[in-house]
Amino acid sequence: MTIARAPQQERSRLTRERLLSSCIDVLARDGWAAATVAAVAENAGVSRGAAQHHFPTREALITAALEQMFDELTTSASARPGGLPAPGPDRIRAVVERAVAIYTGTEFKAALQVWAAAASDPTLRELILPMEEKFARAAHRMTVLALDPTGEDERVHRLAQVTLDLARGLGLADTLSDDSARRALVVATWSDQLVEVLGDR
Amino acid sequence: MTIARAPQQERSRLTRERLLSSCIDVLARDGWAAATVAAVAENAGVSRGAAQHHFPTREALITAALEQMFDELTTSASARPGGLPAPGPDRIRAVVERAVAIYTGTEFKAALQVWAAAASDPTLRELILPMEEKFARAAHRMTVLALDPTGEDERVHRLAQVTLDLARGLGLADTLSDDSARRALVVATWSDQLVEVLGDR
Repeated sequence: MTIARAPQQERSRLTRERLLSSCIDVLARDGWAAATVAAVAENAGVSRGAAQHHFPTREALITAALEQMFDELTTSASARPGGLPAPGPDRIRAVVERAVAIYTGTEFKAALQVWAAAASDPTLRELILPMEEKFARAAHRMTVLALDPTGEDERVHRLAQVTLDLARGLGLADTLSDDSARRALVVATWSDQLVEVLGDR
Repeated sequence: MTIARAPQQERSRLTRERLLSSCIDVLARDGWAAATVAAVAENAGVSRGAAQHHFPTREALITAALEQMFDELTTSASARPGGLPAPGPDRIRAVVERAVAIYTGTEFKAALQVWAAAASDPTLRELILPMEEKFARAAHRMTVLALDPTGEDERVHRLAQVTLDLARGLGLADTLSDDSARRALVVATWSDQLVEVLGDR
């Protein structure tokens, strides 16, 4: 029995993941109001019955999708410095680009829809504030440690905040139109600043 | 007749302004979907009939409110450098604070709701993109000229972009919870950077 059930559980897990990922896509592309169980199921190519088996209500689906979304944002923010260039200007530039990448992906565009909805929905705000704070801490920690492995330089802590707030602003500017050319110049200007201040680390 | 009609025209103009200002408040506080003619009229203390006389459809109301909203953003962004301290570090700090103030007011919170709605609404996007671009140009121009009256220093142009993108990111961070304490540190860090780079101007 255990052997026979395993593939079905696996299929069920995969269906759930497809629905969550579809929910994030629908939020980012079509907005908060459009992310219903039916629309998310259709977008995922999953039957409405199967979707409702996993998520009986829109609230259950949205809550699970938000957890997944912030988990993914936190995971990409927590990437080990392993993939970065050796200490020096190239590493600083890579750290800034990594921060900006977090805020220009699908998860951020979905998160923006959720933030806009949460502005007038205290229950939703209570739900996402702890997730948002956990993600912000992870992003800050990753940025600090990539620039200063000791994590003890107060100046680096502050410059990492500036980097992430700038990245958030660039992410917002990218939601209406393709802002990549202008963004590249802003990223280069800020990276040059950081290189000048932090020197050869 | 002209004399008798003038006060009525004035009343009509004031009612229209109250409705537009109310629409921006409702957008910022209650979100995109909530900004109906009826809700905006009630919030303004204007009868529904009078509101519909000015704005027969939601689309007419929203379009006029967006024009007003971006006009106000553009006006606050275009403020003459007159009110700023004399050239030097204090002036640089005041310029950064002015930029951040633009993105932490009611108009920005309303604009955020509109941007979120426009992400999935091409018609709305076409409507607001030119307004948004006009505002962005005015904000950039004001920031550049306050830092460099000649407007010719390329480096100042780039640093003004960084300042405004950072301000936008800080504005977004302020929509979920009061972020003023953290924001003050980020503003101080970036202002110190600018003072160091630009020196005594």
